[in-house]
Amino acid sequence: MPYKLYYWPGIQGRGEFVRLSLEQAGAEYTDVARARGGVGALHRLLDDVDAERLPFALPALQDGNVIVAQTSAILLYLGPRLGLAPEGEVDRIWANQIQLTIGDLVEEVHNTHHPIGTGLYYEDQQPEARRAAEGFRRERLLKFASWLETVLERNRAGPAWLAGGTTTYVDLSAFQVVEGLRYAFPRASGSALERTPLLVDLVERVRRLPRTAAYLASPRRILFNEQGIFRRYPELDEPG
Amino acid sequence: MPYKLYYWPGIQGRGEFVRLSLEQAGAEYTDVARARGGVGALHRLLDDVDAERLPFALPALQDGNVIVAQTSAILLYLGPRLGLAPEGEVDRIWANQIQLTIGDLVEEVHNTHHPIGTGLYYEDQQPEARRAAEGFRRERLLKFASWLETVLERNRAGPAWLAGGTTTYVDLSAFQVVEGLRYAFPRASGSALERTPLLVDLVERVRRLPRTAAYLASPRRILFNEQGIFRRYPELDEPG
Repeated sequence: MPYKLYYWPGIQGRGEFVRLSLEQAGAEYTDVARARGGVGALHRLLDDVDAERLPFALPALQDGNVIVAQTSAILLYLGPRLGLAPEGEVDRIWANQIQLTIGDLVEEVHNTHHPIGTGLYYEDQQPEARRAAEGFRRERLLKFASWLETVLERNRAGPAWLAGGTTTYVDLSAFQVVEGLRYAFPRASGSALERTPLLVDLVERVRRLPRTAAYLASPRRILFNEQGIFRRYPELDEPG
Repeated sequence: MPYKLYYWPGIQGRGEFVRLSLEQAGAEYTDVARARGGVGALHRLLDDVDAERLPFALPALQDGNVIVAQTSAILLYLGPRLGLAPEGEVDRIWANQIQLTIGDLVEEVHNTHHPIGTGLYYEDQQPEARRAAEGFRRERLLKFASWLETVLERNRAGPAWLAGGTTTYVDLSAFQVVEGLRYAFPRASGSALERTPLLVDLVERVRRLPRTAAYLASPRRILFNEQGIFRRYPELDEPG
């Protein structure tokens, strides 16, 4: 039975980390809201009065009777099934840890344009966003990128992939977050990524994976836009 | 060999979710920075030039040669070892999902006093904090508490525990987050928790677990304070 992905249509968002893994594995899946269900299908899932394991938020993945929400938990579940997880418990928890740290970076990026709250528009928190983005660009961006660089450097199987000697879901997630940073903060990310050559190589290696390359060239890949997590607001990328 | 917990001394913080599980299991562990190592031992771990799996941040747990960071990953690793995880992969991923959602709530609480950035003092982001806290109190607090209430209601093994029919680490985590909300937002949390009686019962059930009760009464339990995640700033609990 094909997997079902429940996520907001029109944005990459956190759902994109799941899409990239499904696509790279060549898995059969339905992107429910985009395929035919629309946003109504998402609300039916989130408001399902019978669901034993109700998701708090999206993305959520359905595999038969199993529904899993939370990006890193979905990838923990999917990774071994898609052949995109390392072998062994300790290595799988290491991959989970890398994914969680990428998730923290995503959260901090979101906070640069929504520091006061997700319930308000960007326009209602713009001065605060400028202050938040300045701290992110000055301290946090390079700290995260450097940590990923260190993970690659110290991988005993070599610096080609983040966890072990083959492609895993965290490589796809690192690709996504770097692409997003380049979109949202072209100036600041350019300067940070000059100092992380292994990470830049990883991104190119992922981009050339045949299934990922085909996905990125397809209409299934939503373009970055200003409703998603990574938004190009030039005022948030300017030196303070 | 006893576990080693690496976390900042003087605050409960995210480390407390790990401490509660270790204590409830009666596990042997050293709280490294408080035992004898001081903050220097934490920096040596974070700056270790030989570590293959370098933590990005604390808490981190050491079990022999294995080092795991990220609260939810630590609990994913420890849960089965401490007898505090449900059986079976799907139930373990469900527990992980609950822990991640509690982690998101913790993150949003932190954001109420540090909306602009962790690199700045509270005093330098106080007006922004008031705005952020207002949105949290009005929309988010009850949304999270209600979700936990629903998880208890729909647990097929009964509403005594969150995941399955016995105590797991997510019950301890739910206890911690409710206690923290009561400390930081006595007014707003009081009003929200009136609508989640099962969650309130769960908190009392956890408080009475003999090992947890002994821990809470011991000097090992750090008190809530204004350096941690849950801070009692009365101005952030006032009606806007």
